[in-house]
Formats: sequence, structure tokens, C-alpha cells
Amino acid sequence: MLDLRPVFFNVGLLLAALSLAMLVPALLELADGQDDWLVFLLSALLTLFFAVSMILATGMAAEKSLRVRQAFLMTTLSWVLLAAFAALPFAFSRVALSPVDAYFEAMSGLTTTGATVLSGLETMPRGLLLWRAMLQWFGGVGIIVVGLAILPFLQVGGMQLFRAESSEKLEKVLPRAAQVASATMTIYLVFTLSCIAAYWAAGMSFFDAVCHGMTTVATGGYANYDASIGAFRSPLIEYICILFMILGGITFSLYILAARGRVSVLWRDTQVRMFLTLIALAALTIGFWRYSTSDLGLHDALRDSLFSTVSVITSSGYASEDFGAWGGFPMIVFFILLFVGGCTGSTSGGVKVFRFAILFSTMRRQLFHLTHPHGVYTATFNGVPVPPNVVAAVLGFFFLYGLTVFAVACGLGLMGLDFVTAVSGAASAVGNVGPGLGERIGPAGNFGDLPDGAKALLSFAMLLGRLELFTVLVILTPEFWRA
Amino acid sequence: MLDLRPVFFNVGLLLAALSLAMLVPALLELADGQDDWLVFLLSALLTLFFAVSMILATGMAAEKSLRVRQAFLMTTLSWVLLAAFAALPFAFSRVALSPVDAYFEAMSGLTTTGATVLSGLETMPRGLLLWRAMLQWFGGVGIIVVGLAILPFLQVGGMQLFRAESSEKLEKVLPRAAQVASATMTIYLVFTLSCIAAYWAAGMSFFDAVCHGMTTVATGGYANYDASIGAFRSPLIEYICILFMILGGITFSLYILAARGRVSVLWRDTQVRMFLTLIALAALTIGFWRYSTSDLGLHDALRDSLFSTVSVITSSGYASEDFGAWGGFPMIVFFILLFVGGCTGSTSGGVKVFRFAILFSTMRRQLFHLTHPHGVYTATFNGVPVPPNVVAAVLGFFFLYGLTVFAVACGLGLMGLDFVTAVSGAASAVGNVGPGLGERIGPAGNFGDLPDGAKALLSFAMLLGRLELFTVLVILTPEFWRA
Repeated sequence: MLDLRPVFFNVGLLLAALSLAMLVPALLELADGQDDWLVFLLSALLTLFFAVSMILATGMAAEKSLRVRQAFLMTTLSWVLLAAFAALPFAFSRVALSPVDAYFEAMSGLTTTGATVLSGLETMPRGLLLWRAMLQWFGGVGIIVVGLAILPFLQVGGMQLFRAESSEKLEKVLPRAAQVASATMTIYLVFTLSCIAAYWAAGMSFFDAVCHGMTTVATGGYANYDASIGAFRSPLIEYICILFMILGGITFSLYILAARGRVSVLWRDTQVRMFLTLIALAALTIGFWRYSTSDLGLHDALRDSLFSTVSVITSSGYASEDFGAWGGFPMIVFFILLFVGGCTGSTSGGVKVFRFAILFSTMRRQLFHLTHPHGVYTATFNGVPVPPNVVAAVLGFFFLYGLTVFAVACGLGLMGLDFVTAVSGAASAVGNVGPGLGERIGPAGNFGDLPDGAKALLSFAMLLGRLELFTVLVILTPEFWRA
Repeated sequence: MLDLRPVFFNVGLLLAALSLAMLVPALLELADGQDDWLVFLLSALLTLFFAVSMILATGMAAEKSLRVRQAFLMTTLSWVLLAAFAALPFAFSRVALSPVDAYFEAMSGLTTTGATVLSGLETMPRGLLLWRAMLQWFGGVGIIVVGLAILPFLQVGGMQLFRAESSEKLEKVLPRAAQVASATMTIYLVFTLSCIAAYWAAGMSFFDAVCHGMTTVATGGYANYDASIGAFRSPLIEYICILFMILGGITFSLYILAARGRVSVLWRDTQVRMFLTLIALAALTIGFWRYSTSDLGLHDALRDSLFSTVSVITSSGYASEDFGAWGGFPMIVFFILLFVGGCTGSTSGGVKVFRFAILFSTMRRQLFHLTHPHGVYTATFNGVPVPPNVVAAVLGFFFLYGLTVFAVACGLGLMGLDFVTAVSGAASAVGNVGPGLGERIGPAGNFGDLPDGAKALLSFAMLLGRLELFTVLVILTPEFWRA
């Protein structure tokens, strides 16, 4: 029998933390003299009541040893339940979202996707805007810790490659997660405060700087304006945003090592190099395409292109311009970038660059093997041979990723969405990017007038993508619940 | 040093056979009293002259032992050069295609793709229509022999799984290829004659029956009418077409075994089962979607859907209706089917079902492995464990396939094509399907007014896809030419 008590205990703790977090927007609304402070306070109390009940029901089973299946369940349940309670303020405030819309907005926040059902963001209560930013910020640090400390031990999609020591057992995961979390949190805070300071210095209001600073480092993409970062019309702000999105898209364990003096790991890492190379390649080609097909000057064309490239590949989803209207070629590149994603152990979504690195290495070895069939060639990553079971795990992940995007797209198609909206919407949700392509859900649109079924399906797709698919799907197999 | 003589000798023999084949349309044109018989005769003489020169230049080096690199070169060079000479009648006849158009049409024929630059097919010289059908027919049997006897020994993209005996050496490939070719040819001929007879009995003219019979079994898709098979407005003809497209999409070595009395291999084969299951699933869901969103009766909706599904998955590319106009959901399914393809060792293109079978098995094992991390699980195919190097080869193939489609789509995008045209055109060409999606190159359009650069790129894409990518690309690596 699966002992669910430690699972509920830990999820309960997270819910309690969420309820405390709700007091911050409550205070802001109170300071603004708005009635909605009561909404946040009530939501906080409701959440706290549920959290405490959950913790008490487990008989305070705070045992630190967590088995594999408990870890899967805890991770998935955290996102599902936190999104449910985080949705309360959206439903109860004067914006009064429907339950599906509220859950979509909260899940989009906690998965750092950044797809929104809201329009007219300029007129929203400031507490609500802050709440959206906070959700992305928590979701961001949450996924870094899960990516660094939990997924490698669950061996999800080849993530075992990132285990610190292969001898470590899962029983030690939680203490290790706490340790990783505190180191990560420090770096995450430093990045966030720097980003806020930079935005503020570059001319944002303090409130905008705080909100956008939090969603930038989380590569989340929630903005306080319908026109996203484009609303500020400031190249400087765009460059700051580019810098911190890239920082948010790089493996945080490398920063931990760098902070301990081993700065060179940042430059030697295969994944980081490939990530930066992909950004440079895509930004340059699209930039020159923009330059030659529009009236823009070279600098503006390159900056627009760099901004959108980084925004999509890091799965942020900010827009400085409606890049959906740039034509066929950029659309193809952005469509592929929707799948790529950033580095593992970062706030980025998508397939992750390390899996492409392994694929690329495997393909090159194959090509070499064909002319030299008697040699033995294995793929490498960071100079180390990749074991065959990791290659198989990456292959399985790829297939499942493609299958998931296809299934979600089919579902959206059955609800009447057109080809480009359905396919790009599915890829964007599973990749935790945010906007899709096309007029309806592209950078200039939003998800508000999709049918409820589509929003529910996309919420599930965001959850699947955020937790690297297997973490969620394994719970749905009968084998999981057997003995 | 790479000895090129046996390569040129064999390619020379194939060119000589091509030149003889040109005499058939020459005779037809002569019988029709058209001047174009001279065009075919001159093309035949020119081709024969080149073929004989090539053979003589090698000093008749008919040595039977072919090394790996020679086999790669021979396979690729066959398609490149045969397409060049097969293009002559298109350029010289009164249709007078430009060199790029003529090469596109010939390559599309020999790769059994079926994308055409011609419109007003009804008015074309009959000799030219026959020539198109013959090219697809030759290309079809050619790729079966390559798929059964050569690619498994070259270990292209996991094809080593289909080696009859792993101890067999490449030196024996050519005699084996000849042996496979004769058995294959018999079955291929029986299928073709049955298909022609069925079409004729169902009401096609004898000439139409011959042409469409050849292009159906080859899963090629060239038709004698702009409206493709839809021109006949005959459910019976559509059912005949469906049957023979499916037969053409199944591994021919299974037919050889079945003809020797082991009929059950056909039902027990994992790949065949998965192929038929995919067809049933896609045809049923799209059929019911069509039924519920159009005025069609259930039978018509299901037949239309089955026809288009089979046409796309077997990479035939015939149209009974403009399935591009059926809406978002069918378009998503057809887009994916563009990639899937039929069984290996058949006339179908695409990724091939066996690679999906290995992916699917790998993914399922992964999912099981997550909850039982201490067990050892390997993917299986046809009940036999798949060695890790084959899994890696399949992974490499997948990645290269995706990369190729993406690169071709980017190229088309840079030439100004829109998103759907560029992406579906690239997928359709690499998958050797024929039509893409969207108005321009969809089932109701054609490739005639694309820019020349796009046609050249698509011709190369067809070649790449037909020879399973690696066969062509390996020749472009420096390692290939080293010592």
C-alpha cells in the first residue's frame, strides 16, 4: 500500500505557505483603499484551513524518507492543488473569473506559462497583478528545485544524467531538496532584486518593476499591460528583460557552483553553449529577415528579433512586438523554438536543450558509424559518454512530448479551433511558453474567448509539460497503484 | 581510395534500362499519331549514349563485391542521375517544362512522391502521362529492393533490424539484391496487373487503368486528371485504390514469405498491425467528424475519410476530395500522417511505422521503469528485444528527419512561402507524399507556380526522404571521402 500521509503532509505545508503569500496582495489592496483586500484575506483563510486540516489528518507524519511513488504523487499534487487555491482570488475579486478561467490563470501562473485569459490588464486591481507575478515567481523557484533535486532521482526522461552521485538514494531526496532549495533561493532572489532594480532605474514604476522583475526571472511572461513589455516602448527595458530571461533559462546548479568559485562551469557546459548558440543563430537570421522585409533599421530589427527569440526559447512569452505578423519564415522558426525550451534545472519549459544535445550527438555518431561500421560510437554529453538507457529515456521523452502535443492539438481541433491556433496553442501550453501563433492566441491575442473545454485541456497540458510529462502520466497508469 | 568503377557500372546499367523504357511511351505517341514520339526516341538515344559511355569508362568493372561506401554512392547516384535523364521528355515535349520543373516532375515520379507542377493533365500527350506513371512504377520497385536488400546492410536509421542474417556481409549484397529483386518483381507485377484489371472492370478506360494501376501499387499518386481519383466519381474505384495503396504500403518481404506458404506472418507482424490500426483509428475519427460537420451521409463521410487517410499515410497523395478544406481537426491528423508513412520495405515514404513501434515500446518501458526503477526493461519489436544501438539509430533518424523538415521549411519560408505551405510542403516532400496542406499546394492545388528555388529544394527533399536521409547525407560528410 502506498502511504499517502507524507505526501499530504508536504503538500499541506506548501498550501500553508501559499496562504501566507496571499496576505501580501491583501496588504497592497488595503493600502490602495480597495475592497478586494478582503478577497485575498478570505482566500488565505480558506487555504490555511484546508492546509491545516490536511497536515493534521496525516497525524503530522513528517517522515523525511520519501519513496519514488510518493515523490511522483507529491510533485503532481502540489501543482494541481496549489493552482486550485491560487485561483480563488481570481474568482472572488471584482474581476470575477469563471472557475475554469480562474484555474487556467492560476495554472498558467504556477507553471510559469504566462498564457492569460485577461484583457484590459491596465484596469485590473494592483493586488491581482501582484498575485499573478507572485504565482510565477513561486512556480519558477519551485520548478528549479524539482528539476535539480527531484526529477533526476525519479529518472524522468533522461534526467538521471543530472544526479550529483548515482549512489545517492531517493530516501535522501527531501533533505537534499531542502539544501538545494536554500542555495537556489539565494541566487533566485539576487537575480530578482537585480532585475527589479534595473527595471526601476530604466524608468518603470516601482510596482511595474517588482511585478515584471518577478515574472522575468521566472521566465513566466505575465505582464501588467496587454501590450506586454512592448507597452514601455523602451529599448533599455527590452535589453534588461533579454538578459534576465537568459539568466532564468540556464541551469541553476551551475550558478551554485559558480558562486562557490567555479565560474568556468558556466562556459564549459554543453547545454549552456548550445542554448546560447541557438539564440544567436535564430536571432540573427530572423533579424536580417526582418531588416530586409520591413522598414526597420538594422538595430531595431535585430533587437526585436533577439527579444522575441529569447522570449520564446526561454518559454517566457513576453512580446515587444506582434511577432506573429512577421511572415512565414520567422513563424516557422518560432514554432520550432516553442518546442526547444531552455536548460534543465532552470525556470524554462519545453523539451530542454540537453535532450537536443543528446539527440544531436547521437545523430552525428550515427552518421560517422555508417562509414565506419565496425567502430563503437556512443553519444556524449559534456564530454562524458551517455549510457544507452539515458538515450532510450530521451527517446521515450521525445515521443511522449510529440504525442502529447498532437493529442492536445487534436482535442483543440475537435472543439473547432483552426489548424495554426490548435497546433501552436498545444505546443505553447506543453512547452510552458504562453502565447501561440496566429491572430487568436498569438502575441497580440489572448486565451479569453476560447471555449471552456479548450481552457481546461490547456491547463492540463501546462501541468503535463511543466512536470516533464512522465511525472504526471505515471500516476495515471494502473502499475503505479499496484502494491 | 574509393573505387568508383563498380558504382558507375551499376548506375550505367540502370540508365540503359531507363533508356529502353522510354521506347514504350515513344510507341504510344507514334500510335496516337503525335510528333512527340520523336522526343522520347531522342531522349532514349541520348540516355543510352550516356549509359554506354559510363559502362565502357569503367572498363566493364562488373565486380560483384560492393563496399559500404560504394553502396551508398550507387544508391544516391542512381536516383539523382535517373531523374536527370527521366526529365528529358518533360523538357523536350510540347509541354516544354523548364529544366527545374522537368527535374522536379521526374524526381517526384522516381521517388513516388507524386507532387506535380503540371495542371490541365487532361490535355497532356498520353505518352507523357504514361511516362509519369512508369517513373513511379520503377521508383516503387526500386525502393522496395533498396529497402529490403541494401538499407538493412548499410544500417541506416535502425534498418539493421531487418537483416535476414546478421552474419551476412555486405559483399554479398548485390547477389542478394538481385535475388530479392526477382521475387519482389513477381509480386509487384501480380499486384499491378490485378489493380489494372480491377480499375478496368470498374469502368476506367484501359489507358487510365494502366496508368493509375502503376501509380497506385507504387503508392505514387500521379493521376491523369487534375481532380486526381476524384475525377472518376466512382466509390468502387476509390475502394480499389484504397485496397492497393494499403497493399503497396506493407513490407514486401512478408508477401514473399506468404507466397511460400507462411501466410500468417502478415497478421503477426507488429508493423503491419500498427499500420492497419493507425489507418482504422484515423479514418474512423475523421469520418465521424466529417459526418457531424457536413451534409454527407455516414457511408460517404467514412469512405472519403478512409481514402484520404490511406492516401496520406501510404504517402500516395491521391485526392478524392479536397481534404484540406475539412477543418482544423482533420488537418492536424493529416499533418501528423504526413510524417508517419507506411511499413519499411514497401513503396511508402515517411518515417515508417516500425520506428514509431520502437518509440512507442521505448516510451511504455520508460513509464513502467519509473515505478519499478530496479528492473531492466528494453523495448521490443515483433516480440524480440531491440538492441540499444538500434534504439539509438532510430533516435538519430527521428532527429535528422525533424531537422530536415525544419531546414526545408525554413528554406521555403525564406523564399516567401507562408507558414502552412512551407511546413506542410517540406513534410510532404521529405515524406514522399505529394500534396501539402493549404490552398496553394494542397490536394486541390499544385506546385506549378512556386519559385524555382523552392522546386529545386523540394526535389532535393524528396531525394533525401526517399533514401532515408542518411544514405544521401553521409556522402556529404568529409569522413566519407577520407581514405
